Amino acid sequence: MDIAKLSDKIVTGDRRALARAITLVESSRADHREQAAELIETLSRKTDAKAIRIGLSGTPGVGKSTFIESFGKMLTAKGLKVAVLAVDPSSARSGGSILGDKTRMELLSRDPNAFIRPSPSGSHLGGVARRSREAVALCEAAGFDVILIETVGVGQSETVVAEMSDLFVLLLAPAGGDELQGVKRGIMEIADIILVNKADGDLKPVAIRTCADYAGALRLLRKRAYDPQDFPKAMTVSALQQDGLEKAWGEMMALNDWRRENGHFDSRRAAQAQFWFEEEVKQALLAQLQTGTARDALARIGADVAEGRATPTKAAAQLLRELHGTPA
Amino acid sequence: MDIAKLSDKIVTGDRRALARAITLVESSRADHREQAAELIETLSRKTDAKAIRIGLSGTPGVGKSTFIESFGKMLTAKGLKVAVLAVDPSSARSGGSILGDKTRMELLSRDPNAFIRPSPSGSHLGGVARRSREAVALCEAAGFDVILIETVGVGQSETVVAEMSDLFVLLLAPAGGDELQGVKRGIMEIADIILVNKADGDLKPVAIRTCADYAGALRLLRKRAYDPQDFPKAMTVSALQQDGLEKAWGEMMALNDWRRENGHFDSRRAAQAQFWFEEEVKQALLAQLQTGTARDALARIGADVAEGRATPTKAAAQLLRELHGTPA
Repeated sequence: MDIAKLSDKIVTGDRRALARAITLVESSRADHREQAAELIETLSRKTDAKAIRIGLSGTPGVGKSTFIESFGKMLTAKGLKVAVLAVDPSSARSGGSILGDKTRMELLSRDPNAFIRPSPSGSHLGGVARRSREAVALCEAAGFDVILIETVGVGQSETVVAEMSDLFVLLLAPAGGDELQGVKRGIMEIADIILVNKADGDLKPVAIRTCADYAGALRLLRKRAYDPQDFPKAMTVSALQQDGLEKAWGEMMALNDWRRENGHFDSRRAAQAQFWFEEEVKQALLAQLQTGTARDALARIGADVAEGRATPTKAAAQLLRELHGTPA
Repeated sequence: MDIAKLSDKIVTGDRRALARAITLVESSRADHREQAAELIETLSRKTDAKAIRIGLSGTPGVGKSTFIESFGKMLTAKGLKVAVLAVDPSSARSGGSILGDKTRMELLSRDPNAFIRPSPSGSHLGGVARRSREAVALCEAAGFDVILIETVGVGQSETVVAEMSDLFVLLLAPAGGDELQGVKRGIMEIADIILVNKADGDLKPVAIRTCADYAGALRLLRKRAYDPQDFPKAMTVSALQQDGLEKAWGEMMALNDWRRENGHFDSRRAAQAQFWFEEEVKQALLAQLQTGTARDALARIGADVAEGRATPTKAAAQLLRELHGTPA
C-alpha cells in the first residue's frame, strides 16, 4: 500500500480512501500495523486540522440513534462535515456492532457530508480503543468538522471515549428520582453536558424534572477552574422533535471556544496523547507475553502454579527472572 | 522478621501473628514483598487447609454489614472460625475502608472466633487484589473455616473477588422490577446464590417479588454443567431478624460439597492460581516502567508526544526499541 498516496487522498477528503485507511488501522496484521502507524504519523505532519471531537454516551433506550440522526442532520444542514464513530468492545461478542445497522440512522447514513463507521470488532477494550483513536485522527485529517464518538455506557468504555474527546456529552432518558443513582459518579465527573432526551409528549414534564435533578447533582461536583461557572450543565432535548438541539450545539461550541481560548483545549489534547502513548507502551509490553519464550515460560510455570507446586507470587518472580534477569 | 517462626505461629492460630502477617503482605516495601512471598510459599507447603471462601458483593444500602454480622455470628455459634476480609479499591480515596468502622459489626468484631480485617489501602485494584488474595491464603493457613470476602459493587471489584472465591454470593435489596436491570449481566453470571435481604416487615412482599424476578433472570442464564440443576438460585433472607440465614448457609454448603466431589472445587482453585500468576507477571512487567531507564525514557518520549512531535503509536514503538531492542 502506498502510504504517501493514501494520505494525500485522505487530506483531499476522499471518502473511499478514508474508509480504506480505517480498515488499515483496524487490522491486527503486523505489516498493517506498521503501515497504519506510518500513515497516522504522515497525516499528523501534513495537517493541522482540529475538529471538535464529541464523546457521546448513552445506554440502550435513551434514543441515542435518533439523537445522532437528528443532531447530525442539523450539523450537515449548516454545511458541517460530520463523522460518527463507535466504541463498543462488546460488539464482537454480541455479534454485531452498535452501528452495524445503518438503518438506525437512515437519513444521516445517506448524507454526503456524514460518515458513519461502526465499532471496530474485538472484545478487548484496549485494542478497540487504539483503533477508534486512530480512526478519529484519520477523520480529523480528512477534514471533518465534528467527530461524534459514541459508546454505550458499559464498563470502562466511557472513560476511554472521554480520553479521545474534547467534550463529553451524556445522553439520558427521563426517569424517576431514584434512578439518578444509576448514573455512576465517575461518569458524572467526566460529563461536560448532560442531555435529557425525550422531552416531548407525555414524558416532557418528567424530562424537565429529571434535568433539574441532574443539574442539582452536577452542582455538587467540584467546579473546574478552566471552565465557565455554569458548566457542566444539564439540558433537555427532544431528538424526535428536533427540539433543543440547536441550543445544545450552541453550548458545546461555547464551551469548546472557551477552552480553545484559555489553552485547555490544547493541554487536554496533549495530555490525551501522552495517555495513549503510555497505554500503547503497556499494551505492547503485555503483548510480548504472548510470543516466543515468554509464552512458553508462562505456560510451563503456569502449570506448576495450577498444580500447587508454586505460589502465584513466587512463580511470577521466577518467570521475570527467566525473561530479563530481573531480581525476584 | 523470622518467617519460619511467624509461619509456625500462624498455623497454630495465633491471631496477633496473623494480623502481623497481613500487615506484611500489605506492605509495598521491596524487602517486605520478598518476605511476604516467602511466608506464603512456606505456609502453602505446610498446610493443606481448605476453608470455604465466600465472595460477597452488595452495594451500599442492601444491609451488608448487618448480614455479615448476623451470618458471621450464626457460623461462630456453630463453632466455626470466620474471617471477614474486604476488597475495596476506592477506600483509600474516600478516606476510610468499608470495614474501618468495626462498630458496624460490633458483636462479630468482639467474637473470639471471628477475625475482621478492613480493605488494604490503595486506589489501584491490582495491588488491593494481590494483598487481599494473600490475606485469604494467610487466614486459610491460620485455620479459619469460612472466609467471607466482601466488596461493594464498584467497577471490576466483583470480578476480582470472584477470582479468589469458591462461591460468589450477591446480596440485593428488595426493589421494583425496573431496577433488576441495574444488576449487570456480568455480575449475574458470576453469582452462585442471590440473597434478597430485608425480607421483613413491610418490605417482605417486595422482597419475595424481587426474589422471584431474579430467580427468573437466573433461569435465562446458561446452565453450568458442573453444578446441580437448581443453581444458581435466588433466596430471601432477613439479616435483621436472622431469618433464612441457616437455609442460605445450607445451600452454600451443599453447592460447595457438590463441587468438591465432582472436582470443580479443585479445578477452580487451580485456574484461579494460574490467573493470579499471570496477573502478577503483568503487574510486574508494568511496574518496570516506573523504574530507572524505562521511567526516564517514558518521560522524555512522553514529552515529545505531548508536544506533538511524535504520535503515540510511533513513540511507543521507539520506547520499546530503546528498552529491549524490540522491532517497531
